Amino acid sequence: MTRRIITLLTDFGIQDHYVASIKGVILGINPNCTLIDISHQVRPHDIHEGAFVLANASSYYPKGTIHLAVVDPGVGSPRKPILLVTRNYFFLGPDNGLLSLAAEKDGIKQAIVLGLRNFFLPRISTTFHGRDIFAPVAGHLSLGVEPSRLGNKIDSWVEIQLARPSLRKNMLVGSVVHVDSFGNIISDIHEEQLSRFTRGRRFMIKAGKISLCELKRGYWEAKKRGLMALFGSGGFLEISIREGNAQKILKMKRGDKIRIQIINNQ
Amino acid sequence: MTRRIITLLTDFGIQDHYVASIKGVILGINPNCTLIDISHQVRPHDIHEGAFVLANASSYYPKGTIHLAVVDPGVGSPRKPILLVTRNYFFLGPDNGLLSLAAEKDGIKQAIVLGLRNFFLPRISTTFHGRDIFAPVAGHLSLGVEPSRLGNKIDSWVEIQLARPSLRKNMLVGSVVHVDSFGNIISDIHEEQLSRFTRGRRFMIKAGKISLCELKRGYWEAKKRGLMALFGSGGFLEISIREGNAQKILKMKRGDKIRIQIINNQ
Amino acid sequence: MTRRIITLLTDFGIQDHYVASIKGVILGINPNCTLIDISHQVRPHDIHEGAFVLANASSYYPKGTIHLAVVDPGVGSPRKPILLVTRNYFFLGPDNGLLSLAAEKDGIKQAIVLGLRNFFLPRISTTFHGRDIFAPVAGHLSLGVEPSRLGNKIDSWVEIQLARPSLRKNMLVGSVVHVDSFGNIISDIHEEQLSRFTRGRRFMIKAGKISLCELKRGYWEAKKRGLMALFGSGGFLEISIREGNAQKILKMKRGDKIRIQIINNQ
Repeated sequence: MTRRIITLLTDFGIQDHYVASIKGVILGINPNCTLIDISHQVRPHDIHEGAFVLANASSYYPKGTIHLAVVDPGVGSPRKPILLVTRNYFFLGPDNGLLSLAAEKDGIKQAIVLGLRNFFLPRISTTFHGRDIFAPVAGHLSLGVEPSRLGNKIDSWVEIQLARPSLRKNMLVGSVVHVDSFGNIISDIHEEQLSRFTRGRRFMIKAGKISLCELKRGYWEAKKRGLMALFGSGGFLEISIREGNAQKILKMKRGDKIRIQIINNQ
Repeated sequence: MTRRIITLLTDFGIQDHYVASIKGVILGINPNCTLIDISHQVRPHDIHEGAFVLANASSYYPKGTIHLAVVDPGVGSPRKPILLVTRNYFFLGPDNGLLSLAAEKDGIKQAIVLGLRNFFLPRISTTFHGRDIFAPVAGHLSLGVEPSRLGNKIDSWVEIQLARPSLRKNMLVGSVVHVDSFGNIISDIHEEQLSRFTRGRRFMIKAGKISLCELKRGYWEAKKRGLMALFGSGGFLEISIREGNAQKILKMKRGDKIRIQIINNQ
Repeated sequence: MTRRIITLLTDFGIQDHYVASIKGVILGINPNCTLIDISHQVRPHDIHEGAFVLANASSYYPKGTIHLAVVDPGVGSPRKPILLVTRNYFFLGPDNGLLSLAAEKDGIKQAIVLGLRNFFLPRISTTFHGRDIFAPVAGHLSLGVEPSRLGNKIDSWVEIQLARPSLRKNMLVGSVVHVDSFGNIISDIHEEQLSRFTRGRRFMIKAGKISLCELKRGYWEAKKRGLMALFGSGGFLEISIREGNAQKILKMKRGDKIRIQIINNQ
């Protein structure tokens, strides 16, 4: 029989006992599941960053995978613990937008507010629902418990509002959505959107203090330590330095604008 | 059949080949066990920190789990390699106190000094007993080898001496036992001890340069960036900042005192 | 049946979605393999460091283990994706030297350039062959696909050229090959080579600004915070500080020389 996979994404870091406590609780319920860390290095309390990483990693997992995610500044407050059942996956976590990007990408079929305490740990702290609520529910889900047994259906949940690239006269304006650990600056401008906008016309990319007039096909096309624009592995425009760290030079952060401008006089 | 779980806790970091060498040795003996990292980011040589993290994470694991822990400044010296068999678990590591908090919490049934070299790697370095002694013993244990076959019984082992909160006239004095990666400052004052001490009377909490007059029930009760005292997920008093890092403000470290004082004039 | 082990070594860090994407792709092909992280904290683009860590960890794994390694500054360029089949293992990664130390240590039996796109993901990015090429190939290999079905045989591959210790009159000159996260400075001078060179004569070890006249058998032989030379767990000469960080004092880096000089006048 195939073992059920449970992935974990948190902002708990890897120094303390928090992540290991979650894993212990899950393995206590289902010792035969496979646990995979997506990341525990989400910036503390940064729901947007967590949502981005989850949305980018989760879709590579096989059907039936349970994605447990906890970036939860409102832990213990009335914010709801939820389960989003999507076309291929189960997403478990706080109802604060963290799950929404990934779940909507996969297509939400059912949303449930976790409410049946018999699936939780006996004693629920106010600060660690990852261990006390989400971990045991993930364990039971992985054993085949029906989602509908875990709580009541809900019709709405918190969604992260992402700015989408906007079109102005002769200009496409996108935003930085993530800076990765290599220092690559990743935007929300997709390859297809850019080509629909430029239609073969010449253009200039403005990012922070620099302008770039062409797209590279891969890092190797730039010279060493050279800045470049290219489409990254997710299909989105990114600013990079070959064998270097673009972020250290450009100091851009999430939300900063990246502008594509058509060059008229040819 | 249920797969045997082996957890790992070290101060080896995750950059080098050390942890992976341990895992390779274990999997070479029992390729079907489940390996779980508790933490490899214990501060180098900090036995107290390792003991704290191990004691807080280990008890969430299912019965039969093998906990292998190596924070071992005395590696290669006459300090003994030991196995502590407890009510639910097996604890393997150096006899320097690292295992004692976790093992005593679970109830020690048997203590053994590892001595039979046929369960070790053929060549034993003086600097890496995690790989050469503890890993192969963990592998054999996970296959069902009887503890008594691994060495001779011993009657005593090194224990970590933790200061316990002390009662002075109208004051309960505890200590910081851990600062987590969020910057939460965790004390050794348990919820029950505090309530026995205060018996409903008003009190003031003094930690570093600040005083707090009330306990919050969860982070959400404080205002953003507000300092607060509350009981953390282990039931102990901690000083936190909502969506912030209390450690960066208070600069407290392990061993620093936290005082609870009864306010008499009401 | 024994589950197949796949290890991962990259310079991707553990903050982003990259490693988790690779694991998802592998588990989508073979949900029953065991995934083990060797390290994802190789310095970005540092092929030598990756090769060192891989060579030191890989040999502890059981026969049949698949080692997937990606430190790949030339991703997307004409550098080849390869599989090296060795006596005990399979090594998958870019043909840039990263695999060569580990594979040659184990004995290379067959080398293959990965070329059959039906074993890759349908869409191959130019920046993330770890996910698009190496992960799916690892998954298929773990299911028992014959190496010869994955591409064409090749006769040569990129090798890392390591300086070997050199003998000058009365002097053995080695180099620093790695500085670990404890700050231990590890050289390429093996225990056997040193003893062949010194043949019982007195010698002096010169490393950076310090000289040491003896070898310790283990850390515990030095006094606390004392600098020492000893043979590390791989059998190579290293400079360490007991319960301290030698690197912080000596500021040595990979390639720096360590000299062993015979003291003649006795």
